[in-house]
This record gives sequence, structure tokens and C-alpha cells, in this order.
Amino acid sequence: MEDLARSYFPKNISDREMAIFELGIKLAALFHIAVGMPIQNASKTRESVAMGIAKSIECQPYVKEVKVSILEKGEKVDKQYKKRHEFDYNSINGKNLQASVDLQYKNWHVVGKIEYIPQLNYPLMHITKIESIPLSSEKTNKS
Amino acid sequence: MEDLARSYFPKNISDREMAIFELGIKLAALFHIAVGMPIQNASKTRESVAMGIAKSIECQPYVKEVKVSILEKGEKVDKQYKKRHEFDYNSINGKNLQASVDLQYKNWHVVGKIEYIPQLNYPLMHITKIESIPLSSEKTNKS
Amino acid sequence: MEDLARSYFPKNISDREMAIFELGIKLAALFHIAVGMPIQNASKTRESVAMGIAKSIECQPYVKEVKVSILEKGEKVDKQYKKRHEFDYNSINGKNLQASVDLQYKNWHVVGKIEYIPQLNYPLMHITKIESIPLSSEKTNKS
Amino acid sequence: MEDLARSYFPKNISDREMAIFELGIKLAALFHIAVGMPIQNASKTRESVAMGIAKSIECQPYVKEVKVSILEKGEKVDKQYKKRHEFDYNSINGKNLQASVDLQYKNWHVVGKIEYIPQLNYPLMHITKIESIPLSSEKTNKS
Repeated sequence: MEDLARSYFPKNISDREMAIFELGIKLAALFHIAVGMPIQNASKTRESVAMGIAKSIECQPYVKEVKVSILEKGEKVDKQYKKRHEFDYNSINGKNLQASVDLQYKNWHVVGKIEYIPQLNYPLMHITKIESIPLSSEKTNKS
Repeated sequence: MEDLARSYFPKNISDREMAIFELGIKLAALFHIAVGMPIQNASKTRESVAMGIAKSIECQPYVKEVKVSILEKGEKVDKQYKKRHEFDYNSINGKNLQASVDLQYKNWHVVGKIEYIPQLNYPLMHITKIESIPLSSEKTNKS
Repeated sequence: MEDLARSYFPKNISDREMAIFELGIKLAALFHIAVGMPIQNASKTRESVAMGIAKSIECQPYVKEVKVSILEKGEKVDKQYKKRHEFDYNSINGKNLQASVDLQYKNWHVVGKIEYIPQLNYPLMHITKIESIPLSSEKTNKS
Repeated sequence: MEDLARSYFPKNISDREMAIFELGIKLAALFHIAVGMPIQNASKTRESVAMGIAKSIECQPYVKEVKVSILEKGEKVDKQYKKRHEFDYNSINGKNLQASVDLQYKNWHVVGKIEYIPQLNYPLMHITKIESIPLSSEKTNKS
């Protein structure tokens, strides 16, 4: 199935570029799924919501691991949180969502993040790491 | 804050009607947040994603409890699920999403559901229970 | 089909309550569909995005008319808007989304709004009007 | 601002790879914003909703043009559409959404599509074209 999907791409797109394209997809899918979800500053709520989003994105092609945190930088979860009134909650937005996605396409391992960058006033999606790794089948072939 | 919010409604809206209005809001919020989330038939994934959605909606005003299940009626979670290829997953949609929301507005307790109704070919949001309950403060006043 | 849907509700839910429940659904559907959509302060963009959301919600049961505006109260659309740099845009959120939904269930006409209320720091969904109207079939019967 | 954003990426990511990464982001943002929006088979509704989504994604960085169509392949819009009953509509999903995104990052022009591929039973996001173009500033420099 992966080869069939690849056949829809121009031939001069490399495996490394495929990994980068897929990473962009996952980061944006995560962001647009998460934004607008109600959230409150109780550790159990934040952890459950973050875990649900992470496990959902982990279903997507080539994903190895997803980590999600719903906290502004420097903010701390309030373990003794008590709702003060019925409107005392907020929503996931570009400032409080942080996530990393780790994926592998063939021998390319790539990691990306979503994080709010104050100087840009923007939740930037960016690549943090890209590396070529020996595939287990290649190892076998070489030995 | 609840009284301030109420001041934006016409005066002839009853507490019972407020409960019903709020229930409609929660069911639709849940549905439109959930639809499109990637999902696969592994028990851990389905439970995490369902829990994340439920805990998010529980942040909203007047909600007591939310239950979410991501399974078509009669479908069973595959505890031995293995991904067969990278595209072997689906998404939350109107057919596989079931949820119930339990909320209380003043002395009105109301429960509603989202469930796919084959005869309508539609994910129907409906009320399943509505009842007036004695408020604890009223009990105290009477004693 | 409408009668079949109604059969899933408790018998003591009135037509007026059905209208109120359906209004809650539409307002929350609109909000959670819209939040997170990229937007910029150009009149053509704002009008197109607002129109798309309105026309989508008008597909839902019992809806007569939907109006959407993507502007904070008092804000004005910039007709000479020029993008200053690539990150010069924002998203629909609880503060800049205003909408009204007008629906009719049997002889009940009900109107509701989403609008940001600064004192609540909250995008409140509320009912603005509810009235019983003579149905055209009833008129015919009386004549 | 674009240079500041670029500083968050590894140095060995090329301009061509940046264009590919940004394309993945836009396609997934479009998909997850659109999925779940109510739709009906009336030309005015489909065109308005498609236009609203396109204009929203055109706000994102580096995007030149977005085209959206909400129709399964081979399906035709019904210009005489009449709603038969209140539940006679559907939603945007992986099968009826088609879109193309055209973007430029520095001298790289890249085009991508979302389209349902029956053999994959999957709404595939893929690159359809990538080319290097002379930048106007380069032209100026050469003259």
C-alpha cells in the first residue's frame, strides 16, 4: 500500500522529502484537531486530553511517537485545581499547545514540534531533527 | 457568573429549558470536536481517545459526566489488533461515535445521547432523560 | 423522518423544548466548526469564510437562516488590507466570532446567538428570541 | 519574520524541503478544518462552503492559491436540489473532499492535492508538482 501511495508523487521526490512532507501533515492534523477543545487546569483533565490527541495522531501513517502538552511555557498544572464557577475553563489554542511528532519514512527519521513563539506571535510548526538510520533489512543485506 | 449569563436569555425561558439548551450545546460540541480524529481498532487507542474527548467536554458548564465510545453498534474492540499497513486506520465519524452527556442546571437533571440511527442514516442527538431533583440547598432549608 | 427522530425523545418534551434543544446543537456545531480556521483582516476573506460557515450550518435540520461575522465588537474590516509578512494572520476564536441562528421546529420560532461577553471572558451561546407562530397548515385548516 | 521562523529549523533543511514541509501542513490543515462540515448537494451551498475553506487556507504562510471541491469523483452537483426532509444532508468527509494547494517558498513552487484513492480506501495527500522558479529579485539582479 505504501508503494501505491508513493506512485502518486513525482518521481524526483526523495525518501527524505517524503518524511518531511509526512511530518508537516501530522503536525497540522494534530493542531487543527486539538484547537478549540475545552480544557481546564486540572492535572487529570490535561493529561487525559493530551493523551487522547497523542494516541489519535499515532494512528497516522509512519508515526512512531507523539507527545502533547497543554500548557503555556512556564505554566504549571494546578494539582489542587477547583472549578470556581461554571465558566472557569478555557480551550486549546495556539499559545497553550505544545507537541512533538516523531516519524520514520523508510530510512529517514524526522522529529517536529508545534510550539508558540512569542516573537512571531505564532504557533510555529518546525522540524527539530532529521537523520538517516540504518534499516534492519539493510543491515541484513550488508552482513 | 451563572446569573450574569442567564441575564442574556429571555425572561420566559425556564430552568428546565436552560438545561435542555445546554445539553444541545454539549452534544454538538462533542460531535464536532471528535469527528475526523484518526482512530484504530486497538483497545488502548480507542479508550485513550474516547477518554480525552470525554474529559474535555466535562470542562464545559453544568456537565456532570460524559461517556464516549468509538465503536459502531455491535462492533467489538480488537484486543489483538496489529496494524497491517500504514493506511490501516479510520476516523471518528457519525457511524462509530456514541456518547452520553449528563448535566444539571439548577434543579434539572438531563441526559442526552449521540448515536447513529440506521433508519435515519443519521447520528441523532437526542434527550434520553429529564427529571427535577431536590437541590441540596433546598433540603437544608426544609430541615 | 422528523417523527421518527422525535420518537427517540421522552414523551414529555414539548415542541418548544425541541426547538430550544435544536438551537443549542446548531450554535455549538457552528462554534466548533469555525474555531481554528485561519482568517485575515481583508474584507473578501472574512466575508467568504463567514459565508461558508453560514451556508454549512444552514444544511442542518430546522435551520432557517444563519449569519456569521468574524470581527471583535467594534473592530472594522480593513478594506485596504495588505499582508505585511507571511505570519500576519490570525484564527477564528471565541473573541472574534459572532453568529446568529434562526430556526423553526413545528410552530416554534427561536433565535440564538454566539457572542463574546467580556464580563464572563466567554463566548456565550444564548437564546435571543422565542415565539410561537401560526403554521400555514393551521391557517388553512381554520379558513 | 520568515528568517526568524527558519532559524528554528535544522541548518541542513533546504529551501526545497521547506516548501515540501509547508505543503504538508497546508493540506492537513485544510482536511481537518473541512471534515465534519455539514453540506448538501445544492450548487450554491457547495460553492460557498468550498470557497470559505479555500479563502481561509489562503491566509496561511506561503500559499498562492487553494481550490476546493466537495464532490465525490464523477458526482455532479444537483442544480435543482430540493431538501426532501430535515435530515437530507451529509458532511464533508474523506471521500467527497478534493483540494489542491499551490505554494511558494523562496524559489520553490510546489503543488499538492487531497483526493480519495479507492485502492487505498484513503484520502491521500500528495505532491503533484515541484519546480524551481526564477525569483523576481534574481531577475533584477541579473539585468
